[in-house]
Amino acid sequence: MTTKRRVRLGMVGGGQGAFIGAVHRIASRIDDRYDLVAGALSSDPDRAAASAAELLIAPDRSYASYEEMATKEAAREDGIDAVSIVTPNHMHAGPAIAFLEAGINVICDKPLAATAEQAQQIADACKRSKARFILTHNYTGYPLMRQAKAMIARGDLGKIRMVHAEYVQDWLTEPASNKQADWRTDPKQAGAGAIGDIGTHAFNLAMFVSGQTPEALSAELHSFVEGRQVDDNAHIRLRFEGGARGTIWASQVAVGNENGLRLRIYGDKAGLEWGQENPNVMTFARFGEPKQLITRGGAGLGGGAAQWTRIPPGHPEGYLEGFANLYTDAADVILGEGDGSYLPGIEDGLDGMWFIEACQKSSAADGSWIAR
Amino acid sequence: MTTKRRVRLGMVGGGQGAFIGAVHRIASRIDDRYDLVAGALSSDPDRAAASAAELLIAPDRSYASYEEMATKEAAREDGIDAVSIVTPNHMHAGPAIAFLEAGINVICDKPLAATAEQAQQIADACKRSKARFILTHNYTGYPLMRQAKAMIARGDLGKIRMVHAEYVQDWLTEPASNKQADWRTDPKQAGAGAIGDIGTHAFNLAMFVSGQTPEALSAELHSFVEGRQVDDNAHIRLRFEGGARGTIWASQVAVGNENGLRLRIYGDKAGLEWGQENPNVMTFARFGEPKQLITRGGAGLGGGAAQWTRIPPGHPEGYLEGFANLYTDAADVILGEGDGSYLPGIEDGLDGMWFIEACQKSSAADGSWIAR
Amino acid sequence: MTTKRRVRLGMVGGGQGAFIGAVHRIASRIDDRYDLVAGALSSDPDRAAASAAELLIAPDRSYASYEEMATKEAAREDGIDAVSIVTPNHMHAGPAIAFLEAGINVICDKPLAATAEQAQQIADACKRSKARFILTHNYTGYPLMRQAKAMIARGDLGKIRMVHAEYVQDWLTEPASNKQADWRTDPKQAGAGAIGDIGTHAFNLAMFVSGQTPEALSAELHSFVEGRQVDDNAHIRLRFEGGARGTIWASQVAVGNENGLRLRIYGDKAGLEWGQENPNVMTFARFGEPKQLITRGGAGLGGGAAQWTRIPPGHPEGYLEGFANLYTDAADVILGEGDGSYLPGIEDGLDGMWFIEACQKSSAADGSWIAR
Amino acid sequence: MTTKRRVRLGMVGGGQGAFIGAVHRIASRIDDRYDLVAGALSSDPDRAAASAAELLIAPDRSYASYEEMATKEAAREDGIDAVSIVTPNHMHAGPAIAFLEAGINVICDKPLAATAEQAQQIADACKRSKARFILTHNYTGYPLMRQAKAMIARGDLGKIRMVHAEYVQDWLTEPASNKQADWRTDPKQAGAGAIGDIGTHAFNLAMFVSGQTPEALSAELHSFVEGRQVDDNAHIRLRFEGGARGTIWASQVAVGNENGLRLRIYGDKAGLEWGQENPNVMTFARFGEPKQLITRGGAGLGGGAAQWTRIPPGHPEGYLEGFANLYTDAADVILGEGDGSYLPGIEDGLDGMWFIEACQKSSAADGSWIAR
Repeated sequence: MTTKRRVRLGMVGGGQGAFIGAVHRIASRIDDRYDLVAGALSSDPDRAAASAAELLIAPDRSYASYEEMATKEAAREDGIDAVSIVTPNHMHAGPAIAFLEAGINVICDKPLAATAEQAQQIADACKRSKARFILTHNYTGYPLMRQAKAMIARGDLGKIRMVHAEYVQDWLTEPASNKQADWRTDPKQAGAGAIGDIGTHAFNLAMFVSGQTPEALSAELHSFVEGRQVDDNAHIRLRFEGGARGTIWASQVAVGNENGLRLRIYGDKAGLEWGQENPNVMTFARFGEPKQLITRGGAGLGGGAAQWTRIPPGHPEGYLEGFANLYTDAADVILGEGDGSYLPGIEDGLDGMWFIEACQKSSAADGSWIAR
Repeated sequence: MTTKRRVRLGMVGGGQGAFIGAVHRIASRIDDRYDLVAGALSSDPDRAAASAAELLIAPDRSYASYEEMATKEAAREDGIDAVSIVTPNHMHAGPAIAFLEAGINVICDKPLAATAEQAQQIADACKRSKARFILTHNYTGYPLMRQAKAMIARGDLGKIRMVHAEYVQDWLTEPASNKQADWRTDPKQAGAGAIGDIGTHAFNLAMFVSGQTPEALSAELHSFVEGRQVDDNAHIRLRFEGGARGTIWASQVAVGNENGLRLRIYGDKAGLEWGQENPNVMTFARFGEPKQLITRGGAGLGGGAAQWTRIPPGHPEGYLEGFANLYTDAADVILGEGDGSYLPGIEDGLDGMWFIEACQKSSAADGSWIAR
Repeated sequence: MTTKRRVRLGMVGGGQGAFIGAVHRIASRIDDRYDLVAGALSSDPDRAAASAAELLIAPDRSYASYEEMATKEAAREDGIDAVSIVTPNHMHAGPAIAFLEAGINVICDKPLAATAEQAQQIADACKRSKARFILTHNYTGYPLMRQAKAMIARGDLGKIRMVHAEYVQDWLTEPASNKQADWRTDPKQAGAGAIGDIGTHAFNLAMFVSGQTPEALSAELHSFVEGRQVDDNAHIRLRFEGGARGTIWASQVAVGNENGLRLRIYGDKAGLEWGQENPNVMTFARFGEPKQLITRGGAGLGGGAAQWTRIPPGHPEGYLEGFANLYTDAADVILGEGDGSYLPGIEDGLDGMWFIEACQKSSAADGSWIAR
Repeated sequence: MTTKRRVRLGMVGGGQGAFIGAVHRIASRIDDRYDLVAGALSSDPDRAAASAAELLIAPDRSYASYEEMATKEAAREDGIDAVSIVTPNHMHAGPAIAFLEAGINVICDKPLAATAEQAQQIADACKRSKARFILTHNYTGYPLMRQAKAMIARGDLGKIRMVHAEYVQDWLTEPASNKQADWRTDPKQAGAGAIGDIGTHAFNLAMFVSGQTPEALSAELHSFVEGRQVDDNAHIRLRFEGGARGTIWASQVAVGNENGLRLRIYGDKAGLEWGQENPNVMTFARFGEPKQLITRGGAGLGGGAAQWTRIPPGHPEGYLEGFANLYTDAADVILGEGDGSYLPGIEDGLDGMWFIEACQKSSAADGSWIAR
């Protein structure tokens, strides 16, 4: 694989004190496909400048606003090829549209937006732009999840019957106040609670791997912590085209769970089970045969997951490498070297918005089924 | 503990080729509290006699019918103290009522019956009889489940928020025909599919351990195997008095699962998780502290589970020992040596019947909530 | 399987307060193949009588000494078929020889004896007697261990290269004083420490499963607890005929381990790994293929382990059921219904004595190799 | 943490087709502390140039030899601060000495060298140079290993009694021929087999975490694959100053193991166990208390491992992040911002060489103890 040049990357959000921005930056560096050269890292000008200095971004490419950044970078000959948007959910639409309109590729954190209206505006901008829009549903970057998707697509599980996903945490078990908790539990900034922050990940991953198309859902949302204005626990049922059934459980109050994203899919021939807390192994069982432990890039895969991994099986890769697979695919697309067929995009974002809204509607209607 | 005599036990059903009858017999022997001395082991007289001979039951106490057995054993001075009923579900009510009316204690396999009507008849007979009625929801006999119940009752988890139970198997993934599959998938004999056979176990165990009282449920039942007349997969949501929420998943078509009965309960202070396939360990996590591995009779339990176990921690006990705990408690009750406070009884049976019916009604009504 | 009658069993040792006697009794009952009808349960006459009463042994068959019991039972028409010897190690030889000489089958706890001299006397008595001598290396009764033995014997692993066994506990981490700890750490009663109590189990199981013949060993024994007169930790290396190599680690001071008996065997084609704390699953890996999870009686075994198990896969069996497999095989032998080809006997006992002595000699000689 | 500039890094070895060079490069990038600006990437000039181009190294800083690179880089004002040496073992000494003599910091792959003589030459060069020498025993970079080291150092385990390490793989189960296998099984290039390639890692990690000082070792090496000229399996016993005991097992023929590096350490108060295949969790058990699951940066650590991790607990980090911790610490040292107290150096390298040689000597002498 010959890399002629690196992608020139800018970032919106992700200044000092932020969490997910740093993750995006590491993910962009792991395979050496990006140079971070520009940023509008904070709405606070001092923090923006200080953050840029720390990241060795040249002062003249540290911008006070994303609008300025979009305009000026589009005008530079060596302007950025792509921008990463790592702001809170309600701040995705503005920069996404600005950069799409400037013809600059967008790599946007999930969920797509805080409201359906914002989401639609982004979708419209995508249609008008030649730039690519990529949504970082990073769990799809785990090699074994791509392996699982391929196995299901080629029929290893037979006809899919049940899809169970869960994403459970415990960090919001008690009323909390810090930068992360504050915006994630603010209905205005986040748009939703557990279903938006982690439920969309579980939903997206389940669809990505299983290849199923949802037909309707029924949900019960709950806020266990007194005074919390968004959901912190959600029990969801799904009906898929063709008759399969599924469930999603998202929770931020399941004590003892850190980031328990788990997937269990069953067909009429075989089943598979995976959890991200030990993501380098997946079980696969054909009916009537012993269960197998499939390892990342390990024995007997027929060359599957190995293409998305950097080190031999038994040497664990993790969250950052999975995230990096998205960035690396994106670099291929941006530089015209790949089609990014595994990359989540605007359709995934709209699906996620449907998921959030349908959960809220269904729950308000005592669990009635909401069609898609 | 001084045992003066063993309980004299009879059995209805459980002849050659049966499964659960043999389990009951082993469970009765483990702690040496029973002598099996009488039986109506099969409705086929030859098989009944041959089965009795194999079990070293005296020929004159091998009966052609349970009615005869109830009458004659009640009349003997050395007649049986108790009878185990291990017939298919639709054959519980007849013998249960006969023995209760004869004043003989009844140990009955679950679920209580195949129909609500049969269940009510048993309940009525219980009221009229001084004999004890015990329903073998055997998973409540696992030492760690009793330990968990005690921990929750004393407040270790705080206020309960979520209760998740699942019981998943794969043996009915394909159309099957054998003695076990046949009656368990026949609506007349079984009354229900997965929800009756294993869903009631999950429901019962979740209630036993969590101490929660269900208020309503919503269910979606499914038969994935073409032509199957009972459910083979069920997704259930529960609302409990006081605001807790729960889910139950029962399946007989989840490829790769043998007898995956699992329980996860979370309160506002702590959570615990357990699975019967490795029943000698349970995780327990207080919010903000490392997760603990609690072992059966192991370190730091404060004398909890040790009373229901026979061997040191690290030496695994299993399904049969858990089942034996029910039989041993029952012997204590029958011989007047204990109150059997942990023993499931007629109320649990009626709860289970409500569970089955409510699942069926809710599913027929597109998942509407069915109050209790 | 038709059982015409039960084996009439006596017991030496195992009175009130003892541990392993109760285990033997449960094991004898699980498959309903024995009636315990006689005993010399304690050297203290009062305790012997009280223990017998508790066990519902008729007073006239509760004996004050094993000599009396051997003589009188041999003379009865309905005398015992077999005796279980469950005394401390230094008290095995006396009763074993007495019952062998009386023509009564012996089921003896391990290790064979406290000294080589005692062991040899038992072996001599075995040669002179037509009665069968069975040594309860109970871990060989685990279904998956028999399955593993069969798999290795038929070549599934190819030529064996390495055999690793360990049996690690922590209960003697600190100086302890109780009935169990006292005799097990007394050189006179036990003859050895960890190597005798648990090392012999690990050694026996490793030989049973792997089919290897030891050629020599090198050991380092240690007593970490001050004042302890027997070993509490042992690191052992083994050389086998044909070139395979092995290690055994036995410890009673490995904090956090309850009864960690584990076995890992590798050949030039495949490897397998098992641990008794979750004994119902074993991993099996062919070189270049995904690792498999083999479950007790589960899918894809080709009818292997299923014959030694009572309940479906996924329903855990444990230590007592494994122990029961030895008793049940023994009943078959005693009643002339089987050859007991899996039963450990006097040769295993002598091998175990060699193991203990060779460990002690090697350790005293700075780890020199001791030939067999 | 303010980063004023990145470390300017060169690399010797690591051209196209190499494995560990790419790992070093990723590790250097993860925390954005390095710019790779120079290289002598291959002894084949064409491959060197092509590799440099791929890595976006300027043609004038792609050198034909490490000697030239050392000289020219030392002369540049913007010359490299540090060089990574990622050649086969017998090619470490040459470049290491050259760069040390040029005053350039050296980051060298392990083991130190292929022979004791080479090792000593490097050590001598270290003494003569002000530059820092860092040996990439990368497993010490795992956050939980540093956490474990700190816990042991502060006495959480009490007095250490046993240290067990193992590093087992299966990739050399059969005769193999490829770039990786070829040099690693060539006595001239590698100097040793499993003990050098992975045994030194296990040894180093065990010493790093336990804080023990070896006094002597006894080893048995084996080559199971016919014709192999280096060891592929090794059983090692260790005696430590102060009386603790240990074992190391290294194998490349243990079928079913990918990169099974595991560590188990026991003191008189507590024990801990860890495996790198799921490196984000460690068990910790105080005597008489339930075992705890300690997660990377998780609850109840008192701020321990969190400083060496980038993402929240439950999001797995892996091998590359652990490796990156070494590079990041090294950057701190090189830029004068830290003391690198956790960094392995020349002493660790010499210890590793002692380990290799002592294993070979002991094995040749039938397992005799070799003092340190």
